[in-house]
Amino acid sequence: MKSFRLKFNSYQKSIELRLKQLQTNRSPRSMHEPINYILSGGGKRIRPVLTLLAAEAVGGNFKSTIYAAVAIEILHNFTLVHDDIMDNATSRRGRKTIHTKWDSNVAILSGDAMIAFAYNELLKTKSKNISEAISILTNGLFEVCEGQAYDKEFETQKNVSIKEYLKMIDKKTAKMFSVAMEIGAVVGGGTQKEISALKSFGMLLGRAFQIQDDLLDVIADEKEFGKKIGGDIKEGKRTFLFLHALAKSNPNQKLLLQKVMLKKCKSTKEVENICKLYKTLGVIEIAKEAIKSNIFEAQKKLESLKNNESKKMFFWFANKIGERNN
Amino acid sequence: MKSFRLKFNSYQKSIELRLKQLQTNRSPRSMHEPINYILSGGGKRIRPVLTLLAAEAVGGNFKSTIYAAVAIEILHNFTLVHDDIMDNATSRRGRKTIHTKWDSNVAILSGDAMIAFAYNELLKTKSKNISEAISILTNGLFEVCEGQAYDKEFETQKNVSIKEYLKMIDKKTAKMFSVAMEIGAVVGGGTQKEISALKSFGMLLGRAFQIQDDLLDVIADEKEFGKKIGGDIKEGKRTFLFLHALAKSNPNQKLLLQKVMLKKCKSTKEVENICKLYKTLGVIEIAKEAIKSNIFEAQKKLESLKNNESKKMFFWFANKIGERNN
Repeated sequence: MKSFRLKFNSYQKSIELRLKQLQTNRSPRSMHEPINYILSGGGKRIRPVLTLLAAEAVGGNFKSTIYAAVAIEILHNFTLVHDDIMDNATSRRGRKTIHTKWDSNVAILSGDAMIAFAYNELLKTKSKNISEAISILTNGLFEVCEGQAYDKEFETQKNVSIKEYLKMIDKKTAKMFSVAMEIGAVVGGGTQKEISALKSFGMLLGRAFQIQDDLLDVIADEKEFGKKIGGDIKEGKRTFLFLHALAKSNPNQKLLLQKVMLKKCKSTKEVENICKLYKTLGVIEIAKEAIKSNIFEAQKKLESLKNNESKKMFFWFANKIGERNN
Repeated sequence: MKSFRLKFNSYQKSIELRLKQLQTNRSPRSMHEPINYILSGGGKRIRPVLTLLAAEAVGGNFKSTIYAAVAIEILHNFTLVHDDIMDNATSRRGRKTIHTKWDSNVAILSGDAMIAFAYNELLKTKSKNISEAISILTNGLFEVCEGQAYDKEFETQKNVSIKEYLKMIDKKTAKMFSVAMEIGAVVGGGTQKEISALKSFGMLLGRAFQIQDDLLDVIADEKEFGKKIGGDIKEGKRTFLFLHALAKSNPNQKLLLQKVMLKKCKSTKEVENICKLYKTLGVIEIAKEAIKSNIFEAQKKLESLKNNESKKMFFWFANKIGERNN
């Protein structure tokens, strides 16, 4: 277990190192400074580490995968920059968002450039499967946009079903986990069976990750979480918990939940009431169950892989996702 | 000459046809509708036609180039969508811009998705040089972002030199012409010499195109131009004409030009005065000269190519760019 943690940390460090190498003093500064800023702003670097691990799991080597891994991280950061504009988010990872520190135009443009930056990094990969990798990245970019579009549509859509919600998070969050794994497996030279197993693992893990995200917004310890809880409630987001609560609520409780949708639950007291309601209705347990079952399904996908250290590490990591508190 | 025009029109139609095929009824509608809207909004389709012609010039075939050509057009349209947000432009090609018809979030997101859309289209190309083509597109995307970043920086930068202006238009406009030609030549299987000649032709042609754009804003016939003249003056843009006028102006004239920079020349009368000043200072002639010489240089780049119909057509087309009135 400890060796897994050490390995994870060491891969994180390699990602950080490469991201640091990419920082540039080039002009135009209004574009390159915000890119440097977001890429040096920390983050868990989960997706690129998954890429490195997926490549390793199929016998690929680190050196030929680092560019693909970093491409994934850059693309992920692009989504953060643009999503933050759309969500009017003022802070991210404890620092101002780009459109707050600079302005929206700067954030739009540096986000755009980061897409090119990601492709450029991926193109450094020496692999006969580079076209396939490009195609996977492209597909990921497209779906992550679709996911965000659904998410924005849901803000004003009258009824959102749990099925629709799951489709949205599959595209907005889980797809990037799946892309990270798939690209690693492809660049690493995996067989079709291996690629398919690792890709599915990523998808299910990503889904668990997002439901955990929704859950943490309600039950996290604020100190460990690093931000105030109840953000989703204040923003009127249709989360996994919200939608299940709506489905299980009586008419009176529904009225309260409708206030959330109208973004009218902003005070600490109101947020607390909603959190209490979630507990009363048992949706905390439903979320925990869903996370557990997605992780279990993810781990099952690994069965067809060779019994090596990588496989054990993925098992460990999937469990970690279910236990994470930030 | 007439046959060149006919050929150009027929290639334009092929691009329109393919763009029409790409229209989709898919969800999320908030993303796909604006993409359909911008791609069906007309435009001269110069860049993708250049891609088809460049491939043909090196012996490539139409069928294997159409996807690359359409990818270029999609990428160009992405830049329009995002630039229009940043420039607060309300209309484009006689219709509302996406962020005006929908909102900024929709415009950001559909623009982002169009980048993926462009790569996806390019990836349909059957060519052993596909990686190189992807790399060219990526480089183009990156530079076009840099160009737009410079353009926005110039709005508040105290002094902008003509050299800086030329670097900006090379990235913001000319690069896309060059990318269009280069991708066509690469996908068409051209030799290094051919690729290099066609790429340089595109760059110089694009530069002429942009200076002509700046010029038309001052001297165009509004009916043929399709929009009011003086738009750049009202927006305080540092155009080719403006910067040359500034360099040649006496202290009194400079005061007038400083009003332009401060976006204080908004009325028809004020715009007319600036246009008159441009004439007095001879910058209209300087612009015409610059267009002519860039076109001449562009045509010279073709010397190393075989003396075939394609070469004649590029000659013809370059002259057309210098004569265009919209």
